[in-house]
Amino acid sequence: MKKEKIKIPKATLERLSIYYTALQNLDNEEVITISTLELAKILKIKPEQIRKDLSMFGNFGMKGVGYDVIHLKIQIANILGLQNYWRLAIIGVGNLGAALANYEKITDWGFVIAALFDIDENKIGEEINGVRIYDFEKFVPISRRKLIDIGVIAVPDDAAQSVADTLIKAGVSGIWNFTAAKIDAPKDIVVVEENLMAGLSALSFYINQNSN
Amino acid sequence: MKKEKIKIPKATLERLSIYYTALQNLDNEEVITISTLELAKILKIKPEQIRKDLSMFGNFGMKGVGYDVIHLKIQIANILGLQNYWRLAIIGVGNLGAALANYEKITDWGFVIAALFDIDENKIGEEINGVRIYDFEKFVPISRRKLIDIGVIAVPDDAAQSVADTLIKAGVSGIWNFTAAKIDAPKDIVVVEENLMAGLSALSFYINQNSN
Repeated sequence: MKKEKIKIPKATLERLSIYYTALQNLDNEEVITISTLELAKILKIKPEQIRKDLSMFGNFGMKGVGYDVIHLKIQIANILGLQNYWRLAIIGVGNLGAALANYEKITDWGFVIAALFDIDENKIGEEINGVRIYDFEKFVPISRRKLIDIGVIAVPDDAAQSVADTLIKAGVSGIWNFTAAKIDAPKDIVVVEENLMAGLSALSFYINQNSN
Repeated sequence: MKKEKIKIPKATLERLSIYYTALQNLDNEEVITISTLELAKILKIKPEQIRKDLSMFGNFGMKGVGYDVIHLKIQIANILGLQNYWRLAIIGVGNLGAALANYEKITDWGFVIAALFDIDENKIGEEINGVRIYDFEKFVPISRRKLIDIGVIAVPDDAAQSVADTLIKAGVSGIWNFTAAKIDAPKDIVVVEENLMAGLSALSFYINQNSN
């Protein structure tokens, strides 16, 4: 059965990930139910916004009781597609790649870091968090064997497109790009850009405005 | 003289940082001028969008010639407030904090990584990239002596607010928060959240949609 594709604004998706984090924390604290108002207070997001976001996907709340924490957590995980246990490969095990390989949230959210890749002979064969670093030259066969869904690009900017081309050739479904380079990819490949300097320069902009 | 505060959408600010990256690369390649159409092609952003974004801040282009690369680069740096050479302290020298301390783009863009902080005795006194790791217990006096403008929070989520409280007490102007915790701060302190899991879960969402 083909599910209908829902068009969701990027900002809504971002808030869903924030709700998911909050529900994980509440679940860890063994909270059973939470009202929209309580959730709004924790997250500093307007209750109307939370109601509107969640109503896009169905009716999760119980009148007078609020949301069942575990139930809502699972629902959001399903909306975000987290039940797929996507398999990640990180390409480029420099500082950033190593930090991502060690970033517990990625696995907490159900993603599997299945392989690491580099071209540095001193790194190949080593492990981070029990995951082996392979020679990027062998990406295509290893990626197919390890059923990689998502390639994480953490290489220098000028190598980004050539790495992406290899990922695409290997048949990944998505690319998480940590370089400042824009990636050319066919339309059926999802590319998400993680532009750290955008965040820092926004910070600079607002501080500069405040100080004028 | 008080400058007028310009209200700029977050997406525009993000594109300005993308233009800045492209102009840096063009300048490195010794390109002197570039037309809107060429810039649009490199960045895969519509030329109308680029014209609209840049026209918010004045008239930078020369009819029939395009933009002077260095001039436009400096103009955007000024808009983004990069000429302030903001001084950063990174709090939490785990994998992510160390990756940020080694992230060359931060210094390429004119930010100064002035100090690192941790509570781990084995790390205190060590250096990354020539920058010393100090005891976070001494943050307030060291931050004031080193004129820290921006605190980068790269600690576990449950320590984020207490770290933020110390940064605020020390008088920082901005906080770059890499935790999933929401930071409570007075209105005059700029807080930018870097929510990595939002990017990864957006990727998961779109791949899931494609595969249905």
